[in-house]
Amino acid sequence: MVSSSQKDFERLFEISKEIAGLKSVLELLHWDQETYMPKGGGDARSFQIAIVSSRIHKDKTGQRFKGALSKLINLKTGKLKNPRLSYAQKIALREWRKDFLKATKLPNEFVKHFSELTAKATMVWAEARKKNAFSEFLPYLEKIFEMSRKKADFLGYEDHPYDALLDEFEDGMTTKRITPLFTRLKKKLVSFLKEIQTKPRMENGFLQKQFSKEKQIAFGQNILDTLKLQRQFTRLDESDHPFTQSLHPTDTRFTTRVTDIGLMSNIFSVLHEAGHAFYEMGLPADYWGTPLCESISLGIHESQSRWWETLIGKSKAFWLYFYPLLQATFSEKLNHISFDSFYSAIHIAEPSLIRVEADELTYCLHILLRFELEKSLLDGTLKVKEIPEAWKEKMNEFLGIFPPDDARGCLQDIHWSSGLIGYFPTYALGNLYAAQFFEVFETTYPDWETRIKQGDFSFIREWLRTNIHTHGRFFSAEELCRKITKKALSEAPYMGYLKNKYGRLYGLQ
Amino acid sequence: MVSSSQKDFERLFEISKEIAGLKSVLELLHWDQETYMPKGGGDARSFQIAIVSSRIHKDKTGQRFKGALSKLINLKTGKLKNPRLSYAQKIALREWRKDFLKATKLPNEFVKHFSELTAKATMVWAEARKKNAFSEFLPYLEKIFEMSRKKADFLGYEDHPYDALLDEFEDGMTTKRITPLFTRLKKKLVSFLKEIQTKPRMENGFLQKQFSKEKQIAFGQNILDTLKLQRQFTRLDESDHPFTQSLHPTDTRFTTRVTDIGLMSNIFSVLHEAGHAFYEMGLPADYWGTPLCESISLGIHESQSRWWETLIGKSKAFWLYFYPLLQATFSEKLNHISFDSFYSAIHIAEPSLIRVEADELTYCLHILLRFELEKSLLDGTLKVKEIPEAWKEKMNEFLGIFPPDDARGCLQDIHWSSGLIGYFPTYALGNLYAAQFFEVFETTYPDWETRIKQGDFSFIREWLRTNIHTHGRFFSAEELCRKITKKALSEAPYMGYLKNKYGRLYGLQ
Repeated sequence: MVSSSQKDFERLFEISKEIAGLKSVLELLHWDQETYMPKGGGDARSFQIAIVSSRIHKDKTGQRFKGALSKLINLKTGKLKNPRLSYAQKIALREWRKDFLKATKLPNEFVKHFSELTAKATMVWAEARKKNAFSEFLPYLEKIFEMSRKKADFLGYEDHPYDALLDEFEDGMTTKRITPLFTRLKKKLVSFLKEIQTKPRMENGFLQKQFSKEKQIAFGQNILDTLKLQRQFTRLDESDHPFTQSLHPTDTRFTTRVTDIGLMSNIFSVLHEAGHAFYEMGLPADYWGTPLCESISLGIHESQSRWWETLIGKSKAFWLYFYPLLQATFSEKLNHISFDSFYSAIHIAEPSLIRVEADELTYCLHILLRFELEKSLLDGTLKVKEIPEAWKEKMNEFLGIFPPDDARGCLQDIHWSSGLIGYFPTYALGNLYAAQFFEVFETTYPDWETRIKQGDFSFIREWLRTNIHTHGRFFSAEELCRKITKKALSEAPYMGYLKNKYGRLYGLQ
Repeated sequence: MVSSSQKDFERLFEISKEIAGLKSVLELLHWDQETYMPKGGGDARSFQIAIVSSRIHKDKTGQRFKGALSKLINLKTGKLKNPRLSYAQKIALREWRKDFLKATKLPNEFVKHFSELTAKATMVWAEARKKNAFSEFLPYLEKIFEMSRKKADFLGYEDHPYDALLDEFEDGMTTKRITPLFTRLKKKLVSFLKEIQTKPRMENGFLQKQFSKEKQIAFGQNILDTLKLQRQFTRLDESDHPFTQSLHPTDTRFTTRVTDIGLMSNIFSVLHEAGHAFYEMGLPADYWGTPLCESISLGIHESQSRWWETLIGKSKAFWLYFYPLLQATFSEKLNHISFDSFYSAIHIAEPSLIRVEADELTYCLHILLRFELEKSLLDGTLKVKEIPEAWKEKMNEFLGIFPPDDARGCLQDIHWSSGLIGYFPTYALGNLYAAQFFEVFETTYPDWETRIKQGDFSFIREWLRTNIHTHGRFFSAEELCRKITKKALSEAPYMGYLKNKYGRLYGLQ
């Protein structure tokens, strides 16, 4: 006989699975928009997205879901109403409740108003960036930060309004926790970068030539096949900005950007997005529709993409296997380039203006700059109109360069215009999580480089799957970090990794 | 000041537009499934489709829509409650009411049960066809016809249960109206085919060679560009079975099947589906969400595809323009083939077993056979288990050939297993409508062949747009036919077209 609490759980699962179905439809709408949608279909697409999003929001906050959930858990106290459930089911209920409380905190009117504002602001921003006219974007950005402060009030926080926003993307992370971490990271990165800059710049001109697009795409696919990414559950396409969108663990799609000029952008995009895809594909499909088949946070997600892009994809062992194949594919351009020259070329570290083009070593500094600005904007110590000046000052402080204009400064990212405040830190957190996990991985597989050199990658994915992917939201990011590494998150492993690698490459040791 | 009836109309429009949004999402789910979805994503896709379909059904039959509709029109009598609406608005209300009444006639339980049955039956059918085992499919098919009779009872009919089913696909068409039409058509086609069979078979072996897939795709795209199909509102992809799916007049997609062997299958698929696409793209986008931006019926839709595939795409003038280009593209294989040989080769008429491979002249006979069987199965004069024998008899009667097995006989089509009874006739109706419309078109543009020969096609599309597409469901199929041709639908124009063309080609005149 099925107990009544099991029946209640099944009922809730059923309702939640329907919502997951609609969410996956939304993923498809976004994926299609960036890949195959005819250009003229944009207005209809915005409408479709609005309809489906609104249905999802209504379902998530509606009486049907609420009623089913509160049969099993007290929404106010979080106390379970019936103990006869499995541990996994209890965890699912804890997460469902958390999501429900978050989703119901923002009044519908506010959500509607904010999404109208950001839709408009995104268009204004695109124009302002083109024309290098911050003043045109300013009134919109002021309104966005004003509403974001209101949003923080709705969502609630104990310590700093930024906590409420951060929590949307990195559940449980706080300003108090992140600030010292990022401050130490900043200091260490800035000082290490200065050391590196005393050394001569390495050569990478041979990578900036024209490489056949077809061959590049085939090479990317070859990497994926070697990594044993199962083609029946995924697909790789092209888009302007690489991204990953998962409809279900059995249907995860990602894209890459392939340009005629330059060879590495496609390869590292493919590896980065494959990392995101592996995560989504490794979530436990049987729980699809519950929080147990969802990723933990954007930071953990980014740890998976950076893992494959940098820790593996920029490792010597990786290229000892792949560089001969790359040479064979582009023999005319690479046959006379030694392995060492190639390996140095993909590790050039130098200050640059644009975040998305930044190298592995300087990337986090771009993030930390944005974090500091966002924090001050939220607590009012910085005014929105002061952003351009503050941006320039910090670029000089962090990287020793001055943006010549706002287009290549504070107007470069789409995030703020879309209302994504509190999102940037997850990019840096991803690097830290990845490096800290990697230390444990290295202890488990001291021969990882020998294996990779022979083209064996399945043990890596398997390690990630068992240690991270398969848990879904069973653990919080902090819990997962402690479970795997026995330590709280720290910048030390990441700095250790960078110093070790770049120290050797630049002859600093 | 906006009158209250205008406000009520806007409100209804708004609700209906939301439903249209969900419907367009369903179109995307289907399109993606046949084109780019990873193979392993099938189960998740079935679930997504079920969720969205069920939401659409709920919306269409729910209190929100019903309340808004009944503010403007009496649902029982069809009487408008407020005369201060435009003529177009009144027509929209008439059609909305018709749709609502139809949608609410079937009990939810029945719909669910029927869709579960057909989902299972489709799988059983696919296996049974492979194994040539009608007996395995029989119990499912019996159930499907039993439920279809019940469905007819739910939907209601005056004269023949088949009317209720037919009406689902060809609004307003009846068995009484269609039977004499189809009987005359059958007699004329059978006798004409016999005449043709006295003549020697024409040669088409040179078209059954290997042709480069890439060049075939490029040639298809070249035809579409010449036809001025706007690329920003549409796209062409490949799939196993060609189809068209429209999300919105600004986002209409279609597919073609390109094989290594044979050249014409791709070209005629492209033309056929482009005809469907032109129709969808020509619907009045401002009315999207109302019946005024919907196609009239499957028969009228098929008239548009057959128009481009046969009346234009198999015309001498079309190939006088395109054959030199085709020769240039495949010079090695076609340079020694004269225009006349080519033109004859695409007009071979001979009995064959498989509907989807049938030629222009015999195609309708395959349809008429299915119509006669469906009708007798519905009124009980034929039993489901007698289908294989009846099929063979009729194939002999209509085409003078016997299927060697059921796989190439009564098991060849997917339609019945999907519960689509009453659908087949629309394929034949499409040919009749097209030919009857074409007579008027020829009178308006006596120089159409001269224009086409020079690669000018826009006037044709414009004629179809103004006379057919732009009206949406403003007129019924019969009304449209009378409006354009001043006559009721008849088989005479179609037979006239066939006799004229094939008579000449086979030297019968």
